[in-house]
Amino acid sequence: MAKSRNSKGSARLIRRLVHDLHAYVPGEQPKIKGLIKLNTNENPYPPSPKVLAAVRAAVDGRLRLYPNPTAEKLRAKLAKLHRCQPENILVGNGSDEVLALATRTFVEVAENTKRGARRDSRTVVQYFTPSYSLYPVLVDIHGAVKNAVPLNADFTMPDVAALKRGKVWDFNAALTLVTTPNAPGGRGYATAQLDKLCRAQNGVVVLDEAYVDFADAHAMALALKHPHVLVARTFSKAYSLCFQRVGYFVGHRDLIAALDKIRDSYNVNGLGQIAAEATLDDLKYYRAGFKKIVETRTWLTRELTRLGFRVLPSQTNFILAKPPLHPAKTWLQALRERKLLVRWFSAPEVTAYLRITIGTPTEAKALVEAVREIL
Amino acid sequence: MAKSRNSKGSARLIRRLVHDLHAYVPGEQPKIKGLIKLNTNENPYPPSPKVLAAVRAAVDGRLRLYPNPTAEKLRAKLAKLHRCQPENILVGNGSDEVLALATRTFVEVAENTKRGARRDSRTVVQYFTPSYSLYPVLVDIHGAVKNAVPLNADFTMPDVAALKRGKVWDFNAALTLVTTPNAPGGRGYATAQLDKLCRAQNGVVVLDEAYVDFADAHAMALALKHPHVLVARTFSKAYSLCFQRVGYFVGHRDLIAALDKIRDSYNVNGLGQIAAEATLDDLKYYRAGFKKIVETRTWLTRELTRLGFRVLPSQTNFILAKPPLHPAKTWLQALRERKLLVRWFSAPEVTAYLRITIGTPTEAKALVEAVREIL
Repeated sequence: MAKSRNSKGSARLIRRLVHDLHAYVPGEQPKIKGLIKLNTNENPYPPSPKVLAAVRAAVDGRLRLYPNPTAEKLRAKLAKLHRCQPENILVGNGSDEVLALATRTFVEVAENTKRGARRDSRTVVQYFTPSYSLYPVLVDIHGAVKNAVPLNADFTMPDVAALKRGKVWDFNAALTLVTTPNAPGGRGYATAQLDKLCRAQNGVVVLDEAYVDFADAHAMALALKHPHVLVARTFSKAYSLCFQRVGYFVGHRDLIAALDKIRDSYNVNGLGQIAAEATLDDLKYYRAGFKKIVETRTWLTRELTRLGFRVLPSQTNFILAKPPLHPAKTWLQALRERKLLVRWFSAPEVTAYLRITIGTPTEAKALVEAVREIL
Repeated sequence: MAKSRNSKGSARLIRRLVHDLHAYVPGEQPKIKGLIKLNTNENPYPPSPKVLAAVRAAVDGRLRLYPNPTAEKLRAKLAKLHRCQPENILVGNGSDEVLALATRTFVEVAENTKRGARRDSRTVVQYFTPSYSLYPVLVDIHGAVKNAVPLNADFTMPDVAALKRGKVWDFNAALTLVTTPNAPGGRGYATAQLDKLCRAQNGVVVLDEAYVDFADAHAMALALKHPHVLVARTFSKAYSLCFQRVGYFVGHRDLIAALDKIRDSYNVNGLGQIAAEATLDDLKYYRAGFKKIVETRTWLTRELTRLGFRVLPSQTNFILAKPPLHPAKTWLQALRERKLLVRWFSAPEVTAYLRITIGTPTEAKALVEAVREIL
């Protein structure tokens, strides 16, 4: 009976699967004032003044009403942008939500086929390491099976022949998640190579293009060509809208319809929809910002390289850089003491590196100054 | 190979569970201007001017940053309001999200124990009918087992003795969802009766208090007393914030910690957090609105009763009313022709009724006028 229950008894109420989970740790959102925040790949430039004006103008009595449950206007605008139909688009509460929906739509739960059982590809989510650190968390939450396959040592992607030789890659995996350009590596992958990988896969492939606006090429054509390929995009990074949580999938209408069935019916908040719509009406503003960020990336890469860092070539709004002299974790701390917040991951493939978001030129200069001091 | 796939082939890519789902149909958000919208239980009064000012003031460069991932300030304010700790509170993207999280945290998936297999209470979500029509949808999405048990004919709740006699209620169900006050019935349930039900349950009980601000009593004490009881609340209805999607659970810290593990890390948008925080600073404004709505409810109940409707006693911001002469569906259409949008459900227990949101006095008068015309 409830009366006799104590805190210890609560474990009985919670699924074993959930009880055993470790929660995802997002990048720090610091409360200390004056920190230069180069840790979570936010755009250093604010949203377009037109976007801010559109959102402000919408803050009125309409907040009492439900938002459009299918983000109808936003999907129409996105369809126009990507030259497809609204039925090819699913909008989510950030791209994190659409990624989570993908695991739950395409991947069977493996709870009952624990250790020792023969692996069933229908329960497998596969991805390269390193890539977006949320993927294994999503797989664990869903109770599916992880197949984490290393990228090449220089963070380029193994080609299909190499994956076949390696025998670890699962060409029948229910879901394959590819961060392209890669995070935290920063490398871009050629559309031709991604196309070959997609063609070789029998399950669903998600090309997670969170950072693609900072790259030379994108692979949207693959989502519109292949019935088993989805491209994930977000308004968070390139479009300075982290705060309002808007991301989306583009892909075949059958996949989109399936994802839509398990979506919360009002998953995208109203002001987020309005902000995203206004963003699409002012892309010119954002493209000017991408250009500045790419220029700053070039400058920062050169400066840090001069100072002894090994900087990987980046197609994103961050760089992955191996610092000289001290371990990366020591650098993390030393930079923080100088009010510069960057990101370090404990995963073995990247533990020697710092991931540094490209900020404004002023922020990049402050980073280089701090590095000089530490050296 | 991908090349040979066609639209028909996509079924293979989608879980059978999802493929077989029917999507939840939310209440219509009409595009026609001039309709009086009494169909989705929104508050007819706008958010407090202070809330609107706070949200407007926050629409600036900070939109580029991630929101607080744990809704820290909002949880602190809610904890103060409910006299508990922030660890007792989980904030979600509307209360729909926290309800979905509950199914996934507390209920085992039953996919592998289909028809014919002995029922395992760990896979069971149970609720009364009628109640919130989203519940069966959430159960189906999760692949769990529904145990839908009828309320009494007058929509009062069967007591524990009656549930025991009935033999259909499952006292070991992993999750029990109770809409209190009931929707779409409108009835309130005494805390003493809810307490007895909670004490008799061995699984988690969610008291879904979406409409409780329009009722004479609430059962928050039960969530703070029992380690297996959660109370769900929302800022949508009473606090005029449907647009911004903020709902929450209050309960034992172990249950909250488990739910937190499977939550998207940035599930609550930033402007929604700010709006909800400002709301809690101006509760007086909202309480004045609740009083007006309760007065209008009393007036509308009396008027419709005079006109031959059978109106159930309501503790919410809507009434369930059985119209005279014509079937409810005919009334739905006739009212719509007169620009009044109400809600009708096809579920057999309520198919004879209309659910009518309590609007402003002017809206209620317009409804009564339209009813007179139709009669």
